[in-house]
Amino acid sequence: MNFMAALNEVASKNLCVLEEQIRESISEDTFIFEACAPLFKGGKRLRPMLFLLCANSKNDFPQKKSMPLAVALELIHTASLVHDDIIDSSKKRRGVETSNSKYGAQIAVLIGDYLFAKAFQLVAENNYGAEVSSTLSKLVKNLCVGEIMQDRSLYEVPTLGEYYTRINLKTAIFLSSCCRLGAIVSEMDKREVENLTAYGTNLGLAFQIIDDLLDFFGDEKITGKPRGGDLKSGVITLPVIRALEVSDEAPTLRKIVTSGKDVDAAIKIIQATDAVDYCRTRAEAHIESARVNLPLTLKTSVALALEQVADFIVDRTR
Amino acid sequence: MNFMAALNEVASKNLCVLEEQIRESISEDTFIFEACAPLFKGGKRLRPMLFLLCANSKNDFPQKKSMPLAVALELIHTASLVHDDIIDSSKKRRGVETSNSKYGAQIAVLIGDYLFAKAFQLVAENNYGAEVSSTLSKLVKNLCVGEIMQDRSLYEVPTLGEYYTRINLKTAIFLSSCCRLGAIVSEMDKREVENLTAYGTNLGLAFQIIDDLLDFFGDEKITGKPRGGDLKSGVITLPVIRALEVSDEAPTLRKIVTSGKDVDAAIKIIQATDAVDYCRTRAEAHIESARVNLPLTLKTSVALALEQVADFIVDRTR
Repeated sequence: MNFMAALNEVASKNLCVLEEQIRESISEDTFIFEACAPLFKGGKRLRPMLFLLCANSKNDFPQKKSMPLAVALELIHTASLVHDDIIDSSKKRRGVETSNSKYGAQIAVLIGDYLFAKAFQLVAENNYGAEVSSTLSKLVKNLCVGEIMQDRSLYEVPTLGEYYTRINLKTAIFLSSCCRLGAIVSEMDKREVENLTAYGTNLGLAFQIIDDLLDFFGDEKITGKPRGGDLKSGVITLPVIRALEVSDEAPTLRKIVTSGKDVDAAIKIIQATDAVDYCRTRAEAHIESARVNLPLTLKTSVALALEQVADFIVDRTR
Repeated sequence: MNFMAALNEVASKNLCVLEEQIRESISEDTFIFEACAPLFKGGKRLRPMLFLLCANSKNDFPQKKSMPLAVALELIHTASLVHDDIIDSSKKRRGVETSNSKYGAQIAVLIGDYLFAKAFQLVAENNYGAEVSSTLSKLVKNLCVGEIMQDRSLYEVPTLGEYYTRINLKTAIFLSSCCRLGAIVSEMDKREVENLTAYGTNLGLAFQIIDDLLDFFGDEKITGKPRGGDLKSGVITLPVIRALEVSDEAPTLRKIVTSGKDVDAAIKIIQATDAVDYCRTRAEAHIESARVNLPLTLKTSVALALEQVADFIVDRTR
């Protein structure tokens, strides 16, 4: 379930404590706990694990000091998913009924707000300093701007630049912030901080490109989501942008994607082009950049783990 | 419009700068600005003004240092209103179309999130320290818990204790936090901090009791809201709790308030009791407590202004 568990001793040493402290962070109030606990079932814990790996990649950073921030990152991620599910009116996520479906939009808004606030409380009360708080608040702001951008341009074909801006705001900044925060708290030097940030950015771009590819061509049984969901809801991603550029049937495809109807026909048109290879090649190039940016000063075991995370990102099937 | 403008030199000196910096805080992104600017039209600026008054109530606290936190408090208040309007499906607030009605729940969720995040960013980047951040994050958490409590017990008659818990979480903690933060940043001593906090708590309790009274008996032309709105949406407040205790028609009233139907009849039943006087007396007692808690060490001009705020709270008609 948790892909990182087997990665290396940093990851496995931290995972149980992380799970325990996530539960603890939501247990102040009985209803909040009942409503939130299911939200943390499943999930790869990619964000806190990236942070913990980076925080221990050169200097050792004590678990006790790192854990509240790791929890805060997962709380922020989960809060944004809860609010996303309102936005998408999703009924299920990771096989579990969404807060929106279970309690209505009202309570779902508040549960998300609670998780955001709890994350900022954890950070404030554990004295990480202003740079950490500022990175986190900017990260949340960027998630909002990315999501607003997406919501306001549904059924419109973005340029490649617009697509990249969106996935950067929605995903890459989050992963790069996790890496950056790990480097900051463990007091790495400025260049190492920038390099680990660049590692995270490229990881995030690759992650989202693969996600967008899986939405079209993933195995529904493994992803747990019906194919072409993005297109149905008007979100136009890289495979479409590429196919529109190279397909003979571009006019038909454009009609489909700007209406969200007949998604199966769109998938066939995209499949007849080089879009899948094109997306994979782009994702792999980002993974290569991520790898190149890993500072040479890292401990071998953690560097290896960070490379394995990168490999996982392109090889994943869900 | 802004009741505090005429209060004293602290208030009037700060108000223009506050308005300017609120606008500045939302102008990073064109759409965000367009969507948010109307949200700040109207409003009493009670929270930032309380903070600014307290921050200057004994020692002078430089405007440049206090303003970002004042802005953050108004952003948090506004964010919570934006999310409340999703919860209540409100079409208008302060005569302006709500984000929920204008852009849909999706964008409204994100606008609220953006404002919360921006508030935390302002605080992080202006080095107020961990206690300030922690107070703010707990405040947001409490707003959520209070609102969840309310949403989960609609059409149920609360005990007096439950009513007080709810209005404390929803309103009083916010006002007391504003006062407390003012005392903290201007480095008042521990006892003064606690006294100003108690002033704020009592102010907040009185504020909410009067608000609940205005919902039934306010002049619709002045409040801008139809009478009995709370009751229609299932929120049962102090006038009802009192009337249920003393009215001969309590069984009828109970039927009405647990169904939300025939609100006009409920208003008549409540009006025939001492509920209005009872609520006013309670609110006035809190105002008296607020006043008593004002530290004697405050500057006369600011102490006077804080007393005037208290008077405003019980005398207001909207």
